[in-house]
Amino acid sequence: MTELAKHTWKSKIHEVIYEADTPAGKIFDVILLIIILLSVVLVMLESVAGMQIKYGDYFYISEWIITIFFTIEYILRVISIKKASAYVFSFYGLIDFISTIPLYLSFFIVGTNALLTIRALRLLRVFRILKITRYIGEGNKLTKALKDSRPKILVFLFAVMILSVIAGTLMYIVEGPEHGFNSIPVSVYWCIVTLTTVGFGDIAPVTALGQFIAMIIMVLGYGIIAVPTGIVSAEMAKKEPGALPEHKLHINTQVCHNCGARKHQDSAKYCHNCGNSLHYE
Amino acid sequence: MTELAKHTWKSKIHEVIYEADTPAGKIFDVILLIIILLSVVLVMLESVAGMQIKYGDYFYISEWIITIFFTIEYILRVISIKKASAYVFSFYGLIDFISTIPLYLSFFIVGTNALLTIRALRLLRVFRILKITRYIGEGNKLTKALKDSRPKILVFLFAVMILSVIAGTLMYIVEGPEHGFNSIPVSVYWCIVTLTTVGFGDIAPVTALGQFIAMIIMVLGYGIIAVPTGIVSAEMAKKEPGALPEHKLHINTQVCHNCGARKHQDSAKYCHNCGNSLHYE
Amino acid sequence: MTELAKHTWKSKIHEVIYEADTPAGKIFDVILLIIILLSVVLVMLESVAGMQIKYGDYFYISEWIITIFFTIEYILRVISIKKASAYVFSFYGLIDFISTIPLYLSFFIVGTNALLTIRALRLLRVFRILKITRYIGEGNKLTKALKDSRPKILVFLFAVMILSVIAGTLMYIVEGPEHGFNSIPVSVYWCIVTLTTVGFGDIAPVTALGQFIAMIIMVLGYGIIAVPTGIVSAEMAKKEPGALPEHKLHINTQVCHNCGARKHQDSAKYCHNCGNSLHYE
Amino acid sequence: MTELAKHTWKSKIHEVIYEADTPAGKIFDVILLIIILLSVVLVMLESVAGMQIKYGDYFYISEWIITIFFTIEYILRVISIKKASAYVFSFYGLIDFISTIPLYLSFFIVGTNALLTIRALRLLRVFRILKITRYIGEGNKLTKALKDSRPKILVFLFAVMILSVIAGTLMYIVEGPEHGFNSIPVSVYWCIVTLTTVGFGDIAPVTALGQFIAMIIMVLGYGIIAVPTGIVSAEMAKKEPGALPEHKLHINTQVCHNCGARKHQDSAKYCHNCGNSLHYE
Repeated sequence: MTELAKHTWKSKIHEVIYEADTPAGKIFDVILLIIILLSVVLVMLESVAGMQIKYGDYFYISEWIITIFFTIEYILRVISIKKASAYVFSFYGLIDFISTIPLYLSFFIVGTNALLTIRALRLLRVFRILKITRYIGEGNKLTKALKDSRPKILVFLFAVMILSVIAGTLMYIVEGPEHGFNSIPVSVYWCIVTLTTVGFGDIAPVTALGQFIAMIIMVLGYGIIAVPTGIVSAEMAKKEPGALPEHKLHINTQVCHNCGARKHQDSAKYCHNCGNSLHYE
Repeated sequence: MTELAKHTWKSKIHEVIYEADTPAGKIFDVILLIIILLSVVLVMLESVAGMQIKYGDYFYISEWIITIFFTIEYILRVISIKKASAYVFSFYGLIDFISTIPLYLSFFIVGTNALLTIRALRLLRVFRILKITRYIGEGNKLTKALKDSRPKILVFLFAVMILSVIAGTLMYIVEGPEHGFNSIPVSVYWCIVTLTTVGFGDIAPVTALGQFIAMIIMVLGYGIIAVPTGIVSAEMAKKEPGALPEHKLHINTQVCHNCGARKHQDSAKYCHNCGNSLHYE
Repeated sequence: MTELAKHTWKSKIHEVIYEADTPAGKIFDVILLIIILLSVVLVMLESVAGMQIKYGDYFYISEWIITIFFTIEYILRVISIKKASAYVFSFYGLIDFISTIPLYLSFFIVGTNALLTIRALRLLRVFRILKITRYIGEGNKLTKALKDSRPKILVFLFAVMILSVIAGTLMYIVEGPEHGFNSIPVSVYWCIVTLTTVGFGDIAPVTALGQFIAMIIMVLGYGIIAVPTGIVSAEMAKKEPGALPEHKLHINTQVCHNCGARKHQDSAKYCHNCGNSLHYE
Repeated sequence: MTELAKHTWKSKIHEVIYEADTPAGKIFDVILLIIILLSVVLVMLESVAGMQIKYGDYFYISEWIITIFFTIEYILRVISIKKASAYVFSFYGLIDFISTIPLYLSFFIVGTNALLTIRALRLLRVFRILKITRYIGEGNKLTKALKDSRPKILVFLFAVMILSVIAGTLMYIVEGPEHGFNSIPVSVYWCIVTLTTVGFGDIAPVTALGQFIAMIIMVLGYGIIAVPTGIVSAEMAKKEPGALPEHKLHINTQVCHNCGARKHQDSAKYCHNCGNSLHYE
């Protein structure tokens, strides 16, 4: 294989794996999406006692197939990018790595429970695939509204926390361990269960004073639920006067071969991040 | 009966059954509405053990009367429209058909439980009747706001799902089957119960770590409930600059004899869908 | 007592009882407010088993004092207005009458339970007193926003009802009486408990399919909670372009002697409802 | 020590303790924040039965260290301000005092439970420290929106209260003590648990009529949750036309030596409250 042939070969893999503008790239993304979802369904079914006994062998084989597919994909991703380290240590690079290793780790670690969570993390890979679809615009708008209202929401959450600790201590003294309020941390947990209007009912006030305080906490929770909603609503309704409709620029799914940067415009010739040409030369 | 007389006769039935602009049409709609509601109340009462024993015979007779009424109505609907297939395979045509058959099916199928749901589906017929009343404008506005914010809500629900699966797996490992978290699907169910602030309390975390994670999930759920609300609020507050106040056009309740299309303006002479004359010639 | 003296005497009572612009009128309103609240607290304390045994006699005497006060007040209200029937059959006239009679009724009716609710209805009298304070403007704005969004909210509630009946029937078939879903009405009750995110947990799905349907119902409930909020938010944020700032007109607390109409402007000389002079001649 | 040296010494302490513009002032604030949070974590851990037995001695020593630190800080605060009484009787002055004394009080009071709440109140001190950081602007905006919508929220809460009392009385009569609705106050508690969509499930209606009323209460609660949210959303979205962007004025963390007033602008030379020079002369 000449240097040029190898170049073209790597360039093609790059286009299929990293981008979604060609038919091959789209098909690859759909297959990857299905395998990821299958692998998570597998994790869920394995945890059902009856299932594991009946179909345990099939689950084990499927996990092997998925792991091999992910291993090959990971290797291809590393070799088809110029600067491998930029990919390996990126957020999605780490998620891809973590998605691949659980089965290999199981040879060394005996307790498989911790590996379950790692396998569930595979679901995060879905975001990368969705990032390059038509929902990108909506997702961006949501993320932006949330980011803009973050300081307000933090202040709000902080106030909720302080309220919970003080009210929790009060409830611990009023109700005490004999009514399920075993310690202040448990009372704070109950307080948050109540303030957020979840209300499990595993712990509930029994004394008249406790029920009275609970009523105040609930009405407060009911009143302040309006605050974050108001924040986000106001943020979303806000029109930024001079803002360009950013999501209407046609952004394609190219990924820089050099640094892995995304969100290049259709007309872009060079990476907006590192200045490298976007054509795989 | 001459061809002309038959024509007039069919035309009259069409007006009474499909439209609501004449007194006869209005009376028919009101009667139909009452019978539909009665039939659903019947289904509900039948399921109450004590009721079924006492009044079982009356229930059976009433169901027969309703079925006969629906059968006659269905036949009239089919024969009074020119293109029967357009009605039969439309959404409401199928609902009408499904509403009619449960009793007939009960001769062939022994388990009556599945038929109960089919009978409850009769309630969907109510929407058609209401569609032709003064609530149509408000309903349209609501539907429009929901439709416009659908991509945002989908992105949001998708993020909720992924969060639930990952948090559910974590809770399954932390709490385990001994505290009611029997499997990952059950843990995911608990997670959604908690995130949506429903909080049944049939399953509740017992360990300190489990309660701590639950607190984070609840505060997250409390925070993100703001997102869909903000989306819909912003969507409803939005005024489309050049939009014509569509619901102020006077729309009558005529239905095209040919294709079954609705929402004709008062001044319309031809169907906006198939071009057929709206006068039954 | 001459006819004139009687006139002046009745006019004074009218001013004290019906209006709040003079010091005497204000004092009367405050006393009335306290007695109403006391009478409701009395009803609540009576229902506590331990309290009734200990302080039963005091409760009985207090109820007599309150009843006598209300009786005198009711008689004065009737005689100090020109057209007594306009007051007696008005909403607040009926509430005043109902507030007065429970003790008298207890001589005829043995079961006192039904009388408790009647006594709790006394609380509705509070609204009249508050109507004439500085909160009137805010209350009006709230009432207006709710009234304007009523058709939208009705359409929304109607959709929720239909959804609950269909989902309730489905849950009844899936879970059945052995898991607490005893009948379709109970299942519909559970459905509304779930959709509104209340989640008592007295009934909870046990089967896998039931939990799956429950998840869909909860996420739906979570999603559609945004709708009424969005409706009211949009309604409140809406500025009516040509609207006069109605609540900034200075409205005093005078009540027409003839027809009982309220909300007269400071400059008004004649009742805006019946044209009678507002001066008690 | 000359009078001047003493002056400079007090001036320096004032700058470190009360302000945060110098590096020393910032470090002091961070240390204080950590100690406050530690002291609250201590209170929470002490209440856990297992912890108290194992680490009781360490907890006791830590509490002594924190108390001594707070005592020194409180004395310095008093002596470094010119008008000590202005500080001592201010809100934060009282909180500082209350934060210091629990351990001293424990020599006189035997029951330590009441002291726990006092120790939890230390958390309120956090607000002072945060007041002088970058979140001040966001916090102000939130507080303002809440303050502006207070009359509306009060009217709303008042309506909720009256509804709860009437519905609670009704539920007490319908369900009665045999189904957990022991008295009217307990029924009102249940009503608020339901209206706020918390739904503990410790008490739940059992009779058909009770469940029917509960359904109405829940749907009402679901509908009216929109009201406070709408209020706050509208308030936050509102742009006050002529308002100056108040939080963009650069406000530093200086505190008047004379009266303790805060929020001085960078260019300010004299206290906006008492007219005293801001330079410690």
